[in-house]
Amino acid sequence: MKHYIGIDIGGMIVKAGIVNEEGKIICKDICQTFPDKHYSVMVKDMYELCVKILSDAGLRFEDISGVGIGCPGTIYAEKGIITFANNLNFHDTPLVDEFKKYWKGDAVYIENDANCAALGEYLFGSGKGSRNCIFITLGTGVGSGFILDGKIFAGKMGAGAEAGHMVIRIDGEKCTCGRRGCWEAYASATALIRDTQKAMAKNPDSLMHKIAAQYGKVNGRVAFDAAKQNDKAAKQVVKRYIKYIGCGVVNLINIFRPDKVLIGGGISNEGDYFIKLIQRYVNRYHYGGKINPRVKVVRASLLNDAGIIGAASLAMNK
Amino acid sequence: MKHYIGIDIGGMIVKAGIVNEEGKIICKDICQTFPDKHYSVMVKDMYELCVKILSDAGLRFEDISGVGIGCPGTIYAEKGIITFANNLNFHDTPLVDEFKKYWKGDAVYIENDANCAALGEYLFGSGKGSRNCIFITLGTGVGSGFILDGKIFAGKMGAGAEAGHMVIRIDGEKCTCGRRGCWEAYASATALIRDTQKAMAKNPDSLMHKIAAQYGKVNGRVAFDAAKQNDKAAKQVVKRYIKYIGCGVVNLINIFRPDKVLIGGGISNEGDYFIKLIQRYVNRYHYGGKINPRVKVVRASLLNDAGIIGAASLAMNK
Repeated sequence: MKHYIGIDIGGMIVKAGIVNEEGKIICKDICQTFPDKHYSVMVKDMYELCVKILSDAGLRFEDISGVGIGCPGTIYAEKGIITFANNLNFHDTPLVDEFKKYWKGDAVYIENDANCAALGEYLFGSGKGSRNCIFITLGTGVGSGFILDGKIFAGKMGAGAEAGHMVIRIDGEKCTCGRRGCWEAYASATALIRDTQKAMAKNPDSLMHKIAAQYGKVNGRVAFDAAKQNDKAAKQVVKRYIKYIGCGVVNLINIFRPDKVLIGGGISNEGDYFIKLIQRYVNRYHYGGKINPRVKVVRASLLNDAGIIGAASLAMNK
Repeated sequence: MKHYIGIDIGGMIVKAGIVNEEGKIICKDICQTFPDKHYSVMVKDMYELCVKILSDAGLRFEDISGVGIGCPGTIYAEKGIITFANNLNFHDTPLVDEFKKYWKGDAVYIENDANCAALGEYLFGSGKGSRNCIFITLGTGVGSGFILDGKIFAGKMGAGAEAGHMVIRIDGEKCTCGRRGCWEAYASATALIRDTQKAMAKNPDSLMHKIAAQYGKVNGRVAFDAAKQNDKAAKQVVKRYIKYIGCGVVNLINIFRPDKVLIGGGISNEGDYFIKLIQRYVNRYHYGGKINPRVKVVRASLLNDAGIIGAASLAMNK
């Protein structure tokens, strides 16, 4: 059986794992990132992390058929360059070339982390069996990855697949990107928390106050928890939030008409209850309701391993 | 040189033309459509139109390498079926099979007309030289066609590529599709006319009244004409309209990051003045403004021949 290494670069840590061709992680470990240091430091650490997991797994360099790297930001995959990654202080960073100074193999690839996760889900997770699928991650922001005809589609120089920055309310809420009304400004966990806080301020008797106190803060679960206990204000927050997510999902369905839409990220931990609400919205509003094929909305299934498996799958899919 | 036939089905007429492999029309003609009659009547007329143009051009059946058909509505291209076309009374209509009862050749293909036009522009028009391009047609509605990696992308059963039904203002204007706030409800000629009429009602002294009287009606040109003559109310209508078009175009750029966005349809007759306004909006608002590659907005160039050349190019591209 072939083995691959998947490396998942985050703002705080780098995860790396050895993944077999069936998408199973054999062995994994992490190291810290230091965004303030030169990128060559991180690349050296990444390489040493690979050496460590190889040793832990009892495998040699020659046993690895390829290395895939997932990283937030805009990635020019064909050139192995990170054009821009805000939190990591990367700017036109030739990460693949730098990594190859240590790793003496040609099969090293890099992609945006949401694109990697989309590919991982397509090959080994909830996207299996579909031809076109769209992956959405609902976290601090709204990320997206598109698998079209079995391949990542990211547009020119990897600068596409930014569905979070599709405006759904022209002149609406300010977005970090400079526009107003982006999907991310309504459907991210950040937006949900903002809306939860507003509703709490207006409803001093809402259960949300008690639940937030238990968590020690207002997080993305407060409104969902309270809504399940039939709190009126919380139910309105959840209803609005589902509408915002649904609006963007239906937009993407009308554009791509994929086989499946996969939902990942922290908010997807709300599980079936949550997915069913989005599915209901989609069934009602997708274009050509009674004629066009329905699109399944499913929860992404690789969860915490999505980063490593997704990155490794990048090398498998070449 | 190889020759193809392109057939463009419309609500009132069918156009057919013989197109050479360089995308030039050798000969063309039209016949009427009768949407109230059974589709087999139209298909027989279509075939006879093909026979006529072959005869006019002095070519024989054997000289034609393939036939492409463009039709409005949802087209299941792989099966040669028109799933649904509102104005033409088609519903799961096996048009290709019916046509092959007369036309004794295997190379007969069908696609949505906007997808055909997109392919035609990509091969022979303003889309030449790009890898991914997006075609938008601004007319009664807002149509779209996506060329990704040199091929039409239309999603499952051809039910995608409906960018006109991407919501840009949640809870906004009613759209014909049942949702509220679709791009089509803001960026179509229909929407422009609605907005022009509103502005005229509010501004009895506006030049738009005189210009509309000259046209004998309020059409999509009234506001543009008056704006060029510095009419204040008209300039506001145009400014808003550009913003609506720009909003959807930027959304699509953030999603696809294509090489080019091509604008066609009646409104594109406003020409350079109009295209430049959209380009300026796009340059300002596309995601990652200073880092990501700029996307060129250009006017579609095949104009009235887009339907025939686009349909023919469908057969060429197989």
